[in-house]
Amino acid sequence: MNYPSKLIEAAVNEFKKLPGIGEKTALRLILHLLKQEEQKVTHFSEVIKIMRKEIKACKKCHNFSDNEVCNICSNKSREQRLVCVVENIRDVIAIENTGTYRGLYHVLGGIISPVNGIGPDDLNILSLEERIDKDGIEEVIMAISPTMEGDTTIYYISKILQKHEIKLTTIARGVSFGGELEYTDELTLARSIVSRMPYENYLVK
Amino acid sequence: MNYPSKLIEAAVNEFKKLPGIGEKTALRLILHLLKQEEQKVTHFSEVIKIMRKEIKACKKCHNFSDNEVCNICSNKSREQRLVCVVENIRDVIAIENTGTYRGLYHVLGGIISPVNGIGPDDLNILSLEERIDKDGIEEVIMAISPTMEGDTTIYYISKILQKHEIKLTTIARGVSFGGELEYTDELTLARSIVSRMPYENYLVK
Repeated sequence: MNYPSKLIEAAVNEFKKLPGIGEKTALRLILHLLKQEEQKVTHFSEVIKIMRKEIKACKKCHNFSDNEVCNICSNKSREQRLVCVVENIRDVIAIENTGTYRGLYHVLGGIISPVNGIGPDDLNILSLEERIDKDGIEEVIMAISPTMEGDTTIYYISKILQKHEIKLTTIARGVSFGGELEYTDELTLARSIVSRMPYENYLVK
Repeated sequence: MNYPSKLIEAAVNEFKKLPGIGEKTALRLILHLLKQEEQKVTHFSEVIKIMRKEIKACKKCHNFSDNEVCNICSNKSREQRLVCVVENIRDVIAIENTGTYRGLYHVLGGIISPVNGIGPDDLNILSLEERIDKDGIEEVIMAISPTMEGDTTIYYISKILQKHEIKLTTIARGVSFGGELEYTDELTLARSIVSRMPYENYLVK
């Protein structure tokens, strides 16, 4: 597209780099910003810059954090011996928003994916082992997406953790609440029968 | 949603203000930015800030511009006596990208819309009249969306321009290329028959 202004063109090109934002959407966003007061746009711009500059990785769980140790790791009211292993920070946010989990997290920063050139050494697995020893972790919950790559990652980590005396669990797989049996894939349905649970547990939500 | 970082939360809140960006999309964009090098994010942020700070409205046509007078108005190879009146800069970009129009523009900055509290005085109509007198405009093309509000705007401007000796035209309404008769709305179809054109004109694209 031709733009009447180099300034607009440069801004559109920056927005276009964001995932899922095409040229037309980028232009729409830019024209929206141009309608705002200058002070508001400056604020928008500064917030993004400062966020990238000041954000840290929590040195315990690798979650994004405002401080050296994140709010979750430094919250003494959480169960310190229970760690939930997740792929990325989005999963942390998703689980936190359920409001039911009271343990800590460990963010792997990805899953093993030979196709994308991601091996075990690219993930935060070594620091997980260190935590288990140092902090006396008793249970590690693997909350990894049930894909082939996710299952490979779980398998790899389970082998690594074999030498530690911990309880290793995975989140339950099954038919989702509101999901219809008829439309559930066969693997999930089959596993949900194998992993059937006492009715008393079903009632506890 | 709860965020593990106030910095992320602030950035998500800024992105959420953009049109069509919800909380989940905002988070996805932010996490993408967090994966980029700091220098790239700083550049993203600066480009947006500088754009808003330095952009000007062309003092002739009210298009966004890097200078006092925009590239289009200052291009002497364009027809100086032909002005196309549009609602906003998006329409300018759309028409420019057809690559066929060689005249100038006049950006109204909106259309008359009593529901949204936009009256004729909020639009750049006075400056259009001034241009007609000062620059010897010979033809004004109304390229306004064919909605009720658009038609009201065209009617209002046509009344204002009556006292000037200019040719006033509107862009052709009709069945779009590739459009099927069957699915064309009745008003468009009816108008396309009333405004039928000689076959020779049809061949000239």
